[in-house]
Amino acid sequence: MEKRFELSLLLDFYGPLLTEKQKNVMDLYFNEDLSLKEISEITKTSRQAIHDIIKRCENLLVEYEEKLNLLEKSMKSESIKQKIIKELKNVKIDSEKNSILIGDIIKNIIEI
Amino acid sequence: MEKRFELSLLLDFYGPLLTEKQKNVMDLYFNEDLSLKEISEITKTSRQAIHDIIKRCENLLVEYEEKLNLLEKSMKSESIKQKIIKELKNVKIDSEKNSILIGDIIKNIIEI
Repeated sequence: MEKRFELSLLLDFYGPLLTEKQKNVMDLYFNEDLSLKEISEITKTSRQAIHDIIKRCENLLVEYEEKLNLLEKSMKSESIKQKIIKELKNVKIDSEKNSILIGDIIKNIIEI
Repeated sequence: MEKRFELSLLLDFYGPLLTEKQKNVMDLYFNEDLSLKEISEITKTSRQAIHDIIKRCENLLVEYEEKLNLLEKSMKSESIKQKIIKELKNVKIDSEKNSILIGDIIKNIIEI
């Protein structure tokens, strides 16, 4: 996975563990795609400080993932869900009741 | 949910975010069910310090749950999985192929 993309996913999972300031800077950098200079102007913080916050947070996000593996687990679950949905579509449906049930099950699987 | 039980579940989710010492004390208290006095003797730490570690960690676990909601999400997923398994058992099976597929799907759902 591309590093920047992986970090933006990790930010989705572990953002709530960062401080408000850290979250704001990381959001501007990874989600709004602003440059260090732009973030520095918006937040009235030196470019060097923004650089340090981003590096520090990147390390934190990677450490959290090493400890909790939420991204890894979520990707694994997602792939199992897709497999199940594919299997459900292979079930031969011979009644309206079954058809409604299978549709319902697929909807519920997406919600897990 | 009983508070002690809830804390032991939170420890399963967020234990990896605690220090080794904190994890050890919490494990002895919540999983091994030892008293403060026993933990104090095993870890060669004062009873008061053990008490403080447990209180501090309880607060940390509750804070992590407020931020990441892993226990809440897991309980919700578990209940959706049980609902899906119940629904799958209601699908009228008229062929061996469908029967094998449904069995497979149930196994996969447990793995999510």
